[in-house]
Amino acid sequence: MAKLTPLLQQLIEALRVLPGVGPKSAQRMAFQLLERNRSGGARLGTALVAAMEGIGQCQQCRTFSEHSLCAICSDVKRQQADVLCVVGSAADQLAIEHTGQFQGRYFVLMGYLSPLDGVGPAELGLDALAAQLAQGKLTELILATNPTVEGEATAFYIAELCQKYGCKVTRLAQGLPFGGELEYIDGTTLAHAFSGRKSF
Amino acid sequence: MAKLTPLLQQLIEALRVLPGVGPKSAQRMAFQLLERNRSGGARLGTALVAAMEGIGQCQQCRTFSEHSLCAICSDVKRQQADVLCVVGSAADQLAIEHTGQFQGRYFVLMGYLSPLDGVGPAELGLDALAAQLAQGKLTELILATNPTVEGEATAFYIAELCQKYGCKVTRLAQGLPFGGELEYIDGTTLAHAFSGRKSF
Repeated sequence: MAKLTPLLQQLIEALRVLPGVGPKSAQRMAFQLLERNRSGGARLGTALVAAMEGIGQCQQCRTFSEHSLCAICSDVKRQQADVLCVVGSAADQLAIEHTGQFQGRYFVLMGYLSPLDGVGPAELGLDALAAQLAQGKLTELILATNPTVEGEATAFYIAELCQKYGCKVTRLAQGLPFGGELEYIDGTTLAHAFSGRKSF
Repeated sequence: MAKLTPLLQQLIEALRVLPGVGPKSAQRMAFQLLERNRSGGARLGTALVAAMEGIGQCQQCRTFSEHSLCAICSDVKRQQADVLCVVGSAADQLAIEHTGQFQGRYFVLMGYLSPLDGVGPAELGLDALAAQLAQGKLTELILATNPTVEGEATAFYIAELCQKYGCKVTRLAQGLPFGGELEYIDGTTLAHAFSGRKSF
């Protein structure tokens, strides 16, 4: 068996925490950094340590933030927004931000209800969401949870919460994805598109 | 445009030094580490910094090592070996070690001759290789360079060096790869396999 120098062996094993990186890719990454880009590798190391230790959650919307309020929550224009968009993860929030369609505020659940995994309303910060609803300033809450079983269940739970506070609730439209072909689209999606059809 | 927290933005940019990692994968990696494996991410960061700063080269064979002699060069059994295998990179050395066929020592060039890129004999440590040849203890030098133009050119150069010191030189066989199909093998490889045919 090959005897790699201990630091190299540790690096290859550590690289495997990255999604989609198996033993061969990890080895390739380690050699490439050592041979061609040591400064980039060291920079990545420092960035990782700083991010893992320094990034917490926004006190208001729960997204990743190194300050007590994230950039969106501390934006004066958006602070006055009366529409709140509830998403499952920071990546979902980013995807919606990229569309440029939404100017309101977010609430990031950082997961979905999953009693078997011990994820209940408290873990998703739904008490903080209820507190925001109780202030009575919101005119609409948009449920932008994943169209999956967990996402739907969580959406139902939050919709009930909104009813209690008399806040209007909407959810993202379900239907055909842009560029999709009817022939290859799954039955459930097609059924949703049919039942949700609009006048032309 | 989305406003990511600065540390997260820096992490996503830093992750792109890894081979095969574009903006989308980098984002996915960053979110995955933050959401699910902060301790693994921090460990990776520490391992990267330690490896980039701590790993140098073995004084004898030039492979990656954090000590002055690598594990193979400091192995008493292999120190006495009179066969030296010359490879282009530490990854190539690892591949040969994995076959378990070779018990001698290595010399890792860490590149190939490439005058246009400023890589000459000195950059590949060929003076150190000549010094080992001059000791007269080697009975065979195996050229295990890549079967590419640069690899061949470097092999020729080293073969001439060996002639000067009267050391026997061999090189890895070229021919059909195991599991390959004649129909799909390129002409040069097939020609090599033909000219290098052996009695059955």
